[in-house]
Amino acid sequence: MHEFELIARLKPLLPTNDFVVAGAGDDCAVLDLGDPGFHTLLKTDAVVEGVHFLADADPEKVGHKAIARALSDVAAMGGTPTAAVVTLALPPKHDPAWVEALYRGMGRTAARFQVAIVGGETTTNPGQALVSVALIGRVPRNQSIPRSGSMVGDAILVSGELGGSIAGRHLEFEPRLPQGQWLASTEKVHAMIDISDGLAGDLRHLLEMGGNLGAELLGSAIPISRTARLRAREGELAKPAMIAALTDGEDFELLFTVAARDAVPIMDGWRERFPDVRISCIGRITAGPAAFIRDRHGVRELPPRGYEHFGH
Amino acid sequence: MHEFELIARLKPLLPTNDFVVAGAGDDCAVLDLGDPGFHTLLKTDAVVEGVHFLADADPEKVGHKAIARALSDVAAMGGTPTAAVVTLALPPKHDPAWVEALYRGMGRTAARFQVAIVGGETTTNPGQALVSVALIGRVPRNQSIPRSGSMVGDAILVSGELGGSIAGRHLEFEPRLPQGQWLASTEKVHAMIDISDGLAGDLRHLLEMGGNLGAELLGSAIPISRTARLRAREGELAKPAMIAALTDGEDFELLFTVAARDAVPIMDGWRERFPDVRISCIGRITAGPAAFIRDRHGVRELPPRGYEHFGH
Repeated sequence: MHEFELIARLKPLLPTNDFVVAGAGDDCAVLDLGDPGFHTLLKTDAVVEGVHFLADADPEKVGHKAIARALSDVAAMGGTPTAAVVTLALPPKHDPAWVEALYRGMGRTAARFQVAIVGGETTTNPGQALVSVALIGRVPRNQSIPRSGSMVGDAILVSGELGGSIAGRHLEFEPRLPQGQWLASTEKVHAMIDISDGLAGDLRHLLEMGGNLGAELLGSAIPISRTARLRAREGELAKPAMIAALTDGEDFELLFTVAARDAVPIMDGWRERFPDVRISCIGRITAGPAAFIRDRHGVRELPPRGYEHFGH
Repeated sequence: MHEFELIARLKPLLPTNDFVVAGAGDDCAVLDLGDPGFHTLLKTDAVVEGVHFLADADPEKVGHKAIARALSDVAAMGGTPTAAVVTLALPPKHDPAWVEALYRGMGRTAARFQVAIVGGETTTNPGQALVSVALIGRVPRNQSIPRSGSMVGDAILVSGELGGSIAGRHLEFEPRLPQGQWLASTEKVHAMIDISDGLAGDLRHLLEMGGNLGAELLGSAIPISRTARLRAREGELAKPAMIAALTDGEDFELLFTVAARDAVPIMDGWRERFPDVRISCIGRITAGPAAFIRDRHGVRELPPRGYEHFGH
C-alpha cells in the first residue's frame, strides 16, 4: 500500500489534541508547545539494511544517512533541528565496532548542525539492522512551510541536481537546512517538500496536497546530475538521464513553489547566499490535475510515481 | 552488550547543545525549548515481533504496548505526554487489516491519555514487524524526576504487583501516568524508574545512577502478582514466585525513592488518590554497593540482572 493510501486509511484512527498545529501528512508534524516565539517540529524516519543501505556500506555513512534523512524533512519545513533520539534494532550477532562507527557518523553530522543526540534504545531485529531516528526541531511561529499551499501560476523551483543518487550520493547527501531556513525567512514560499521518492513522485505529492493541481515542467530546465548522465551512457539498457532525474529516489533536494513574480528575486537571493548549491526554475503550477513535461520531443505526461520504498 | 555498557561507549560520540537539560541515560531526555513553564521530554522505544510480541498476538494489544512502553517512560519522569510519531517497519507481505488494528490499539491508548499521533513513516523490514514510537511530553520546570538522586536511608517504594507479566499483562499494562505526575507534584521523590528489566535489574540502575548505592529489601514486603504465584505452582520446574517478582521483565510499574520520613505520607496520599493501584514500601537505600534481600531464609544477595532484552 502506498504511504498516502495508508495515511488516508489510518488518519481517522489518529487522535489529536490542542498542541497540534499540523499532524500526519507533511514532512514534519508542527506542534505548539507554548514557546512564545517558535513552533516545534517532530519527525521520525528509519533506514533498514538491504533497503536503504547494503550490509557492506560504510557504517559512518549509514549513520550520516540515518540522521540526514530526518534533517532533510526539517529543512523542507524551513526549520532548525534541535535534538534527536535513536532506536537501533540489531541482529543478535552484531559487531560493536559497526555500532560505534554508525554512531560516529550520526554524531558527526548531528554536531555539524548543532543537533544534540539525547538518547536511544537498542533492541533485537533478527535478520538485519534498522536505525530509526526521531528528531525535534523548531521554526518561528507561522513560518513553517507546508506541502500544501501551491497556487495556479506558481513557479516550481528545485535545489541541486537530480538522479543517480544510488551510485553513492544517497549515503552522503547534504540536508538543505540553511537553504530551507532562509526560504522560510523570506515568507515567499507557498509549498515545499524534500525529494525522497523522485522529482515526479514528490511533485505529485505537492500537487495533490495543493488541491489536485497540475504542473508543466520544462525538460531543458531540469538539473540532471553528472552521475545520472554518466550512468545513462553505460549501455543500451542504461536508464536515460532524464528518466533518472525524474524518478530516481533519495535526491533529498528541496522542491518548492513561489508566486511567479517572486521566482527571480528568490533565485538571485539564493545564488548570493548559496553559490555552491544550484537552484533551478523547472516549470509552473497549472489548474491540473495532469502533470506534463515539455521537451524537444514535444509534450508528454510525467512518468508515474518515482522510486518508492515499499509502503512509503 | 548491555544497554549501559553501550551507552558508556557511545556517550562521547553524542553531541549536545544548549537545549539539553538531561541527555542519554534516563527514562526520557529533558530539553529546555523555551517554554517558560515546562521542560520538554523526548523518548523513543520499539517493539519487535518475536522479541516483544508474538506473531499471533492481538494487533490492537501490540499497538497498545508499542505506545504504552514510551508512555511508561514519561510516567517515570513525572511528565505528561503530548504527541507521538510512529515508524512502522513491515515485511513486504503484510496484512493491511493487521496494520489498521495495530493503529486502532495505538490510537485508543493515545486518546485515553490525550496524546496526539502526529505522523509516521512506513518502511520495509524483511522477516518481522517492528513498531518504533517516538514520544514528546512535558513536565513543569525542575519537577522531572531523574534515575539518580537516591540517598542513603531513603525508603524504596514500588507501585502495583510484580512478576509473570509474560502471561499477558505485558500487552495490557497500564502506564502509571497519573501516579507519576502526582509524585512529581509532591516534589518529594528523589529518584524514579519504570520497571522494564525486572525489579532487581532496574533497582540496580537506580543504585548505580545514585552513585554506587546499595539496598536492603524486605522479602515479605515485595508485592508478588497473583499470576506469578499461580505460575509458580505449575510444577517442579516452575519459577518461584519471588524470583519472578524480582527478575521478570515488563512490569512497567514505578520504582522510586523518598526520604524515610516522607514514605508514610506519600503512601497515604497515594492510597487516597489511587485506591486501585497498590503501593508498597519494599526496603531502604544503604551505603552499598551491594543489594540484599531479607526474608525467612535469612539475608541473600539480590539475584543478578533481571530479564533483559538483548542489548537493552
